[in-house]
Amino acid sequence: MLSHPIHGLVAATHTPFHTDGSLNLAVVEQQAAHLQRTGISAAFIGGTTGESHSLSLAERQALTERWMEVTRGSSLKVVVHVGANCLGDVADLAAQAQELGADAISALAPSYFKPRSVSALVECCAQITSAAPELPFFLYDIPSFTGISLSMPEFLTLGKEALPTLAGIKFTNPDGMMFQQCLHHSEGAFSILWGTDECLLAGLALGATGAVGSTYNFAAPIYQRITAAFERHDFATARAEQKRSVELVARLASIGYMSAAKAVMKMLGVDVGPARLPHGRLDAAQEKALQTDLEAMGFFEWVK
Amino acid sequence: MLSHPIHGLVAATHTPFHTDGSLNLAVVEQQAAHLQRTGISAAFIGGTTGESHSLSLAERQALTERWMEVTRGSSLKVVVHVGANCLGDVADLAAQAQELGADAISALAPSYFKPRSVSALVECCAQITSAAPELPFFLYDIPSFTGISLSMPEFLTLGKEALPTLAGIKFTNPDGMMFQQCLHHSEGAFSILWGTDECLLAGLALGATGAVGSTYNFAAPIYQRITAAFERHDFATARAEQKRSVELVARLASIGYMSAAKAVMKMLGVDVGPARLPHGRLDAAQEKALQTDLEAMGFFEWVK
Amino acid sequence: MLSHPIHGLVAATHTPFHTDGSLNLAVVEQQAAHLQRTGISAAFIGGTTGESHSLSLAERQALTERWMEVTRGSSLKVVVHVGANCLGDVADLAAQAQELGADAISALAPSYFKPRSVSALVECCAQITSAAPELPFFLYDIPSFTGISLSMPEFLTLGKEALPTLAGIKFTNPDGMMFQQCLHHSEGAFSILWGTDECLLAGLALGATGAVGSTYNFAAPIYQRITAAFERHDFATARAEQKRSVELVARLASIGYMSAAKAVMKMLGVDVGPARLPHGRLDAAQEKALQTDLEAMGFFEWVK
Amino acid sequence: MLSHPIHGLVAATHTPFHTDGSLNLAVVEQQAAHLQRTGISAAFIGGTTGESHSLSLAERQALTERWMEVTRGSSLKVVVHVGANCLGDVADLAAQAQELGADAISALAPSYFKPRSVSALVECCAQITSAAPELPFFLYDIPSFTGISLSMPEFLTLGKEALPTLAGIKFTNPDGMMFQQCLHHSEGAFSILWGTDECLLAGLALGATGAVGSTYNFAAPIYQRITAAFERHDFATARAEQKRSVELVARLASIGYMSAAKAVMKMLGVDVGPARLPHGRLDAAQEKALQTDLEAMGFFEWVK
Repeated sequence: MLSHPIHGLVAATHTPFHTDGSLNLAVVEQQAAHLQRTGISAAFIGGTTGESHSLSLAERQALTERWMEVTRGSSLKVVVHVGANCLGDVADLAAQAQELGADAISALAPSYFKPRSVSALVECCAQITSAAPELPFFLYDIPSFTGISLSMPEFLTLGKEALPTLAGIKFTNPDGMMFQQCLHHSEGAFSILWGTDECLLAGLALGATGAVGSTYNFAAPIYQRITAAFERHDFATARAEQKRSVELVARLASIGYMSAAKAVMKMLGVDVGPARLPHGRLDAAQEKALQTDLEAMGFFEWVK
Repeated sequence: MLSHPIHGLVAATHTPFHTDGSLNLAVVEQQAAHLQRTGISAAFIGGTTGESHSLSLAERQALTERWMEVTRGSSLKVVVHVGANCLGDVADLAAQAQELGADAISALAPSYFKPRSVSALVECCAQITSAAPELPFFLYDIPSFTGISLSMPEFLTLGKEALPTLAGIKFTNPDGMMFQQCLHHSEGAFSILWGTDECLLAGLALGATGAVGSTYNFAAPIYQRITAAFERHDFATARAEQKRSVELVARLASIGYMSAAKAVMKMLGVDVGPARLPHGRLDAAQEKALQTDLEAMGFFEWVK
Repeated sequence: MLSHPIHGLVAATHTPFHTDGSLNLAVVEQQAAHLQRTGISAAFIGGTTGESHSLSLAERQALTERWMEVTRGSSLKVVVHVGANCLGDVADLAAQAQELGADAISALAPSYFKPRSVSALVECCAQITSAAPELPFFLYDIPSFTGISLSMPEFLTLGKEALPTLAGIKFTNPDGMMFQQCLHHSEGAFSILWGTDECLLAGLALGATGAVGSTYNFAAPIYQRITAAFERHDFATARAEQKRSVELVARLASIGYMSAAKAVMKMLGVDVGPARLPHGRLDAAQEKALQTDLEAMGFFEWVK
Repeated sequence: MLSHPIHGLVAATHTPFHTDGSLNLAVVEQQAAHLQRTGISAAFIGGTTGESHSLSLAERQALTERWMEVTRGSSLKVVVHVGANCLGDVADLAAQAQELGADAISALAPSYFKPRSVSALVECCAQITSAAPELPFFLYDIPSFTGISLSMPEFLTLGKEALPTLAGIKFTNPDGMMFQQCLHHSEGAFSILWGTDECLLAGLALGATGAVGSTYNFAAPIYQRITAAFERHDFATARAEQKRSVELVARLASIGYMSAAKAVMKMLGVDVGPARLPHGRLDAAQEKALQTDLEAMGFFEWVK
């Protein structure tokens, strides 16, 4: 088993599009710079926030290529999400990630057809890990999107034997009991990345040492203050900052989280463009109202 | 609006694989011949039964190409399923289907990210239909797989305006009230294809004139006897035949429907190979037990 | 096993309330008379339509008592729904039904705590049937309300041994394959009552000989014409009448089915009052708009 | 608004039964003594753990009466759960709780018929609170059992106006973002009781000052050590203790949580008997295996 390769705040990055919806790879450089400026440790690319399901294989490959180029030599790590319904595509993406020197790969399970058991899930993962035998592998568990609710501790038990590169789980699952079971599995051998930004403080209390999420793209300073306050046991501050994160997410979700989050990136000077269908688009009035509210809320101060 | 392009029994075909899981296009010719021999009116290719979500774009394109080749000049129609999560891929598949002269296209909605409203669904469909402006388009409604439960009558109302090629719905949905609402929509202008093989008789009673399903691949004679009996009002026979279809489906489902159905094709001389992951595979013992049971049941007599 | 005790159209009756929500048993006599006038074969009392979950045990007992009084000596059969979360209450209700001479009892499974297996369900039913050992028992399967999806054929198999009075199932479940499996179970020994009014024609085609539903309270003539047309194989008429039923149900459902259905009863001269919370109430404007629409639709002619 | 009436660890108590399933009120005194001995601040009676849905109204009333008798003059507070599908019964239970001097009432929403909106939920609650106008009221939010997922912050906003006795929420819901929104609502005016024992540490970090759960009946010392460790910022200890709670719950859940938990009470000398149907019963072998495992695990040391 590989030692924990990923720590700290990992941003699940947006895929940048032009206004017409085509890929806009020129923005990746600004995204990477923005993440580094705000103290993010790794970019998780082409995941749910990255709208990977709305990208063609060729687009995903081009995205990975560009991220590897712009991060070459930098301290920003790159985790390439390679999950898809077609395991053949997944293997291609995994092989590319290894070839280009990514730090790790991650994949959700096929979800149109769903693995019916943990062992079927492990079988799917074996196709993935064998295509990138040198890269740490994180299963991406996100039942609210995939509709797959399998036992993650059981996955670690079987995966430990069958998947030599298994490094951990991107745990986007509200089940805090299962989170602990994974965290303590095999004496803490696995890296279980907390996936719920709005409750980072809960994750830290339970023992999380890494977290992946989309708000780390545009609100990292809030979470760094949470982490710092947690470390010095200042819960008043940690809760007040977490409350800000909650207010922010609630405001974004009220008009369609994905489009709103991409609009926030633009307000911060990193124009990742609109979301693709089936996500909606904000109209100009919604965008302006959002900006006004975020100003009133103090958001632009929070993330300075 | 185009007049009803699809009638009768439409087989949702399997995608043939070699034992190692790679595409085995040589089998398509036998599949087409088998369908014609058993009186099937059209092949619905690359749908759920066709494991489209487990195919790469290139494989789907190769599959379509092969089906168009082997059916050229024959009376067997071809409906190409082009649905996928990535609407760019969908448009490519739709354009190919038109270029190669398919009879119609069909698509399910993106389902990892789900359209939140009927109008968002129509927006997605508009990207599809504009890529194949000469082909009749069938929405593929299958909530048990997509998790999308939108009003189909409302879809027809909006789609009638926005989608010039909208021909109907592949209605794989147990909601018989909604089926009727669609069937009677716009004075019956749309072709609503019944999607529940095990209840074809119910569909016929309600007024279905076309049906798409996977058991039509290997048990068409049963359904033709149901249809004939229904037409001459011989309900005793129609129910007895439908009961056979129920018994068949129950037996296949008991060991994993997809793999079992592909094994049945092989028993009938059309070796479409195993299913891909995350579907399971039958082992030799299961396959033998299945064959024994099907013999005992009389299946091989039923489908002569 | 008892021979089929229930045939034809069975109305799932409303529980009548005063405007203040208290029980209004004086209306039961009018309900019974109305059902007989419209050719209904049996009243299913205290079920979902009867808002049994919103009634106290004492109210349910009073309701049964009143129904047994007003139907004494008439040809209208009475099926008492006795299901509840508390199996002690259920046994009391079952014993009362037997003592007062009801024709049958029916019960849904406890659904806050759910039986985890068919055998647990049978165990629950054994508590019920042993309290009324002389009355035919119908399991009431309604997964959309209970959230319990168990195999009904398996229930019949186990129940046949363990429940001496098991007569059949009130099958309020859209799964037409399972309906057929139950209908054909034990050579048709069980009475499987079709529970989807809007698709009665489908049920008849599959072989249903009895049906229970709420629209039979106020629209029985439509369904009698469906049945008659089906019997003489006039599908054009049968479908046209079923279409009316669909339109009716769609209109009622658009403003809250329960309250709207109770308002329709009042329009027909049988004032069963409002629904109890958590169902909503129609305001005067909604009620008037509903009446206007039903007139325009032709409803009051349909049910003459 | 009343000031926070409930703090600390609240045990959601079991309802004691004889072996034949009848109510065994003699045990209540031992339950109360056990809770006081282990430092529990309040008993939450007749909730999910109390199998209230499997009790008759008369049984619930007798249970409340007994609890009020045995706690008279003691420091152990009593919160009476009065929720049920029938709001008339709920009002009776609420009135009794007030008359007998309970400290608070709590109720889940009717869940067979579900309130369709927050305002419908508030309407239901108004029927409850008006029957006990002097007692603090806690809504009991438990979507995994009720299937009702409504916005709790919105409930507090509407309830604050409409429900004079609204004191807070028994929050048995994994949504940590919503928990924070409720906790911070109206400047912290409401008491939001954490409902997930296996993650108490997460709740404490987010700011919970009270918690209700079933494991507090038999494992309170573990949670007191978690709380103490949290307060002195000793996270290593807090996590190790929480891990024990996770292991305990996992073991109990593996054989049916309710029956296993009642068996544990018996092992601790408080024989609350078996669970009622539809819960299962442990057989002697299961019970012995459980005891052996709990011993091996160290459980009986943990809770000394």
